Amino acid sequence: MREIRQNLITKDWVIFATDRGKRPHEFAEVHQTVDLPAYKPNCPFCVGNENDGTLETLRIADEHGWQVRVTTNKYPALSRTGKRIRHTDGLHRSITGVGYHEVIIEHPLHNQTLALMEFAQIERLISAFRCRYRQIRQDNRIEAIVIFKNHGVRAGTSLEHPHSQLAGLPIVPFQFRMRVDEAIRYFDDHGSCLFCDTIADELHTGDRIIATTEFFTAFIPYAALSPFHTWIFPLRHTSSFEDITDAEMADFAKILKIVLAKLYFALGNPDYNFTIRSSPTGERDTEYFHWYLAIVPHVSRIAGFELGSGMYINTALPEDSAKFLREYNLVSE
Amino acid sequence: MREIRQNLITKDWVIFATDRGKRPHEFAEVHQTVDLPAYKPNCPFCVGNENDGTLETLRIADEHGWQVRVTTNKYPALSRTGKRIRHTDGLHRSITGVGYHEVIIEHPLHNQTLALMEFAQIERLISAFRCRYRQIRQDNRIEAIVIFKNHGVRAGTSLEHPHSQLAGLPIVPFQFRMRVDEAIRYFDDHGSCLFCDTIADELHTGDRIIATTEFFTAFIPYAALSPFHTWIFPLRHTSSFEDITDAEMADFAKILKIVLAKLYFALGNPDYNFTIRSSPTGERDTEYFHWYLAIVPHVSRIAGFELGSGMYINTALPEDSAKFLREYNLVSE
Repeated sequence: MREIRQNLITKDWVIFATDRGKRPHEFAEVHQTVDLPAYKPNCPFCVGNENDGTLETLRIADEHGWQVRVTTNKYPALSRTGKRIRHTDGLHRSITGVGYHEVIIEHPLHNQTLALMEFAQIERLISAFRCRYRQIRQDNRIEAIVIFKNHGVRAGTSLEHPHSQLAGLPIVPFQFRMRVDEAIRYFDDHGSCLFCDTIADELHTGDRIIATTEFFTAFIPYAALSPFHTWIFPLRHTSSFEDITDAEMADFAKILKIVLAKLYFALGNPDYNFTIRSSPTGERDTEYFHWYLAIVPHVSRIAGFELGSGMYINTALPEDSAKFLREYNLVSE
Repeated sequence: MREIRQNLITKDWVIFATDRGKRPHEFAEVHQTVDLPAYKPNCPFCVGNENDGTLETLRIADEHGWQVRVTTNKYPALSRTGKRIRHTDGLHRSITGVGYHEVIIEHPLHNQTLALMEFAQIERLISAFRCRYRQIRQDNRIEAIVIFKNHGVRAGTSLEHPHSQLAGLPIVPFQFRMRVDEAIRYFDDHGSCLFCDTIADELHTGDRIIATTEFFTAFIPYAALSPFHTWIFPLRHTSSFEDITDAEMADFAKILKIVLAKLYFALGNPDYNFTIRSSPTGERDTEYFHWYLAIVPHVSRIAGFELGSGMYINTALPEDSAKFLREYNLVSE
């Protein structure tokens, strides 16, 4: 008999159709190894090409040059300047597209990738995220900040050089508002944080855990929307990503690297997206919301069923995928 | 200045970044014309291969043989038999995966496609949808029925032979419940159907209309989530697809063909998904919900931003895309 599970955090229902699926290791893809050069003359993110007309908003550097850079996106989805003005005309509701759209260049070298970087470099990246988050949330036009990464062509990237992005939005997206509403409802019903309760439950059961460090835990959710869909949560209740401490940043770098390296080696460098979900900026410190990072490797495809129902079909049991990753030994560890 | 629009029906916010985009005709892709055979010996949907172990649930035929067939999916996501049983164990909520997963074979010929079929054949297809919908809704384990189509590899299809699918679900998906809730809220606030009001508004403005027939209108929504994202609505207030009349079916076939043919010829046979959104089966005849068909051509990609925010970036203004399709002349018309 098939099973349909509900993710109580996203409220998504997911159909588990595991007999259609593969064993965990079979999701590994043989990627054509493209030997990228360490430097590409026409890459806008490579060293030496900094003067491309974008505005640099952050630079972390040492005596050898920059290590992480943040710049405005050359083709921004939102305008940095201008007033936030709502228009309502009958059934037409709009707002001026003001906000931030920045690129975080993760490494000076063109051919690097997060899964292979050293902890210290990932920590610099996370500190760049935090720094820009803290700066942008000061702008009272901004209601939500999304940090995300597209790794690989199928995950939507158009540039090889390792980079993430940040968007500061003048509204709270509806999907996000719904999830916050659900978290509030849970808090009202139970007097506790749904995310904290979920973390405690996952640590107690243990069978969906991939890795746990001093301050974080990584697991595949009970109703994961695809094989290897992974969540990384801070153990300490914190609503907003900007409130991550220095010690937590170092530890976050560690668990992020462990998870990405396991995906890289066990599944053959799959394309993936990640996103940091943090409280709306106007609700920084609440009892009901808890920030986290979600990784969605692109090993399956979204089609008409998902589009038409908002549901997903997952061909792998979270317990199986998690066991596979948990037990996968990183030689370099 | 950028504009962000909200779709009041889905509540999605969409960023319009039109200077990043192309002119409407530039979305056309040069597809490699693959000359498919009219018959393929190993295709499970081709004539002669009916005995493949699936159960036929509907056959529309004439003296030359079948014209449309509906069968169970050979690899169903849901089980037809079994009880619908909810399990709740702490934070783990699940339900047995009972329901329907059927395939509607749209034409006997392997190399046909909806955009090129004659009206009468599309009408048969729609009558097959209606017949199966009416049958499956009798099953009191079922709470929602989704009809959908994946056209082309990027839209998630795995079989060339033209076909659609139907899923009868034992729960109301959360995304869908949210939209129904919003429709109820609108009805409570205004005393009218949000969809009817939207249709009246679109017909009045006219600049997002693609085509209007006796009983239907097709338009690109004010906050379309991608270029050429199209909605087809019945003009008569009807909550559930199953209540389409015979006269409306013929007219629905006509407008669906017109829209798909315009997409096919103007954009070079783009990959697309369509889905019919109908009221939950337990709320068949309400004042607040209105069924419709949504077409999403795959001309852009969903990546980390969309995943992390539930928002979309559209590089084309709906008014421009609609004008382009509205004015595109179908030679065969």
